[in-house]
Amino acid sequence: MAVGVKDRALRDRARKVVPGGLWGHMNVAGFSADHPQFFHRGVGAELWDVDGKRYVDFMCGWGPMVLGRRHPRVDEAAERQRVLGDALNGPAPVMVELAELLVETLPFADWALFQKNGGDATTACVTIARAGTGKRKILVAKGAYHGAVPWCSPSLAGVTAEDRAHLLYFEYNDVESLMAAAEAAKGDLAGVIVTAFKHDLGKDQALATPAFARAARAVCTDADAALIIDDVRAGFRLDLRGSWAPLGVEPDLAAFSKAIGNGYALAAVAGTDRFRDAAKPGRVFTTGSFWYDGVSMAAAVATLTTLRDGDGVSHMQAMGQRLREGLDRVAARHGLALRQTGPEQMPMVLFEHDETFARGTAFCVAALDAGAYFHPKHNMFLSVAHTPALIDEALEAADVGMAAAAAVDAKAAEAV
Amino acid sequence: MAVGVKDRALRDRARKVVPGGLWGHMNVAGFSADHPQFFHRGVGAELWDVDGKRYVDFMCGWGPMVLGRRHPRVDEAAERQRVLGDALNGPAPVMVELAELLVETLPFADWALFQKNGGDATTACVTIARAGTGKRKILVAKGAYHGAVPWCSPSLAGVTAEDRAHLLYFEYNDVESLMAAAEAAKGDLAGVIVTAFKHDLGKDQALATPAFARAARAVCTDADAALIIDDVRAGFRLDLRGSWAPLGVEPDLAAFSKAIGNGYALAAVAGTDRFRDAAKPGRVFTTGSFWYDGVSMAAAVATLTTLRDGDGVSHMQAMGQRLREGLDRVAARHGLALRQTGPEQMPMVLFEHDETFARGTAFCVAALDAGAYFHPKHNMFLSVAHTPALIDEALEAADVGMAAAAAVDAKAAEAV
Repeated sequence: MAVGVKDRALRDRARKVVPGGLWGHMNVAGFSADHPQFFHRGVGAELWDVDGKRYVDFMCGWGPMVLGRRHPRVDEAAERQRVLGDALNGPAPVMVELAELLVETLPFADWALFQKNGGDATTACVTIARAGTGKRKILVAKGAYHGAVPWCSPSLAGVTAEDRAHLLYFEYNDVESLMAAAEAAKGDLAGVIVTAFKHDLGKDQALATPAFARAARAVCTDADAALIIDDVRAGFRLDLRGSWAPLGVEPDLAAFSKAIGNGYALAAVAGTDRFRDAAKPGRVFTTGSFWYDGVSMAAAVATLTTLRDGDGVSHMQAMGQRLREGLDRVAARHGLALRQTGPEQMPMVLFEHDETFARGTAFCVAALDAGAYFHPKHNMFLSVAHTPALIDEALEAADVGMAAAAAVDAKAAEAV
Repeated sequence: MAVGVKDRALRDRARKVVPGGLWGHMNVAGFSADHPQFFHRGVGAELWDVDGKRYVDFMCGWGPMVLGRRHPRVDEAAERQRVLGDALNGPAPVMVELAELLVETLPFADWALFQKNGGDATTACVTIARAGTGKRKILVAKGAYHGAVPWCSPSLAGVTAEDRAHLLYFEYNDVESLMAAAEAAKGDLAGVIVTAFKHDLGKDQALATPAFARAARAVCTDADAALIIDDVRAGFRLDLRGSWAPLGVEPDLAAFSKAIGNGYALAAVAGTDRFRDAAKPGRVFTTGSFWYDGVSMAAAVATLTTLRDGDGVSHMQAMGQRLREGLDRVAARHGLALRQTGPEQMPMVLFEHDETFARGTAFCVAALDAGAYFHPKHNMFLSVAHTPALIDEALEAADVGMAAAAAVDAKAAEAV
């Protein structure tokens, strides 16, 4: 897709006043410069870029949009709080309502506290685990993303060795490596932090195996350490009870963000009574200027109750399945094989024999031109606003994308 | 003041589902349990608690409210962006507009990037300083608050020694101690981080002396290290050009948050070209799910232009001066002496001979009852919505407060 005139002009202006034109994961240079960079508006699962081009969207703002953009029930709840006031000198009553709702919704949780970023929540979980156990070592899966803060950022620029002094690494779903890391931490194990499923950039996704989840629980229970589920990306899309509920494995602490408020900025830590004292204000000091903001909490109450009342998770799964089956069909029509992994509502679509992502990128760029926004190497997201008609429309665009992917020279896709 | 019935009921419910009833700095147990904990609404510089009691407010949500709550120009700008959409798959054009506005407003700045928490911004400054210099040591003023993250949190619970391995401490405004710390870092100095002025909890405030500011600049220039101003708390209240502009000292990096969006959650790092490459996405990885959110950026453009067009800083300073002079007058009437320090628009009001804050707390509690919200040991904040009439009304309440403070037994105030 040719970058639009307005998008190009904004990129030129941005490059002057923002390092590299844009920070972080939404910088298209990080995955495909032909994706639109700037957006004008969005409604439901549809999105318009600054040049007026419309897309059926499968990124959902990279996760937050779980009910779809401009959801009336969420926006009305947020607006009711906004006219009362945000950033008061203390929380609004909705803070208690939301904490009660989380404790009621998450079977393992005895308490919750609120923040802004997913990384706020994962960092607080690690700190609470250390404060509650008096120990230091945290086991982390190799390659897992837990936030863009020094202890876990994917870049080492500006990070010191000491920032990661007490981390030990294991392979996701590999019980043996987990046990070895726990053994290495012996006597000093504060916790194990693990994403709800394996969703590393550019790799096949993998649900947590029951054996792995049980082993993580056992390791923590044996050492009186905290099992921390980083449910920032998957939370409230896989299971409202927390993403490991279907496995029957309960964490001590869990981090949520992204989907919790349907786009309103919010994060949460939920925990058990074992770690309640450590999380109290007299112990771990965790706070922020905007962490008492009632508007996002009102949005979260509306988001979670709407997901619950409408069985949003099942709908997203069904829509994800329709997309997955359709993409396989369309790919096969063009003689291409896909690797579609992970939960249906958070699809990762990779092409076989495509180490360079050349096919994936060609697919996305042609599909964008035809009206669907896919990502070549990051997991995507379904929302409650995705309908069978939108999925089918996107599959038409995917057909155009697959033709472009099929035309990619095999050497370009293989060369590493 | 007796805690209201509704407030009490909410505290009881909160204690069950939130550790300690509330996290962080807004938990009234941390400064005075008789302050109201939960709020119903706010307009301008007035605030109503959940029991319907009204206050003239001097905390402004602990900083964010700089124009006053429900400011029409800010709320309209935010609403215009909200109906277009928030959390799109990339930024809205307003991101470029805001970055350009900051670069235009802050004479030292060549670029900006946006986040959510003040601690996001200070942490990114430290990381960018390390990435840009290839060095590790950061000089920090003893007792200064830079955020609630492990490297700088005021609590050590859950913090490891390694989290602070490369920090060296100096005394604010003490050039000799700064030079000694720089000497100790020799060859490995990445940066000096310093708040805009000394605003430590429960202590007299102090503006940065010109000699100290110049020494901090010289230390960094000599070592090719980054001078980082943590302008999170003071930014846009003292000087729109950045808080050290009146001193003629320019930082390499600066962190902003709180007042930038008049209550909409936003933080910013602004920097010079010397650190542009280090801040690019290929180097330091700094990102968050909600860091592209156009609503808060639209609010920030409206906030900063409104402050500029109406000379909000001068107004806040004048109102702070009226409050300061009035409080001194009222205190003298009751035979009490105050220590009022720091910039007028960010008052710290401490009582002489009050090590336990017993007088300060008695003053606040009685003043609350009479309709003014003061803080016994944290700096307060004026806003553009404070009028002479509101200040005078608050001084009437302060008169009631001073009577209560005068009645405090001298021994209770002195005992440590």
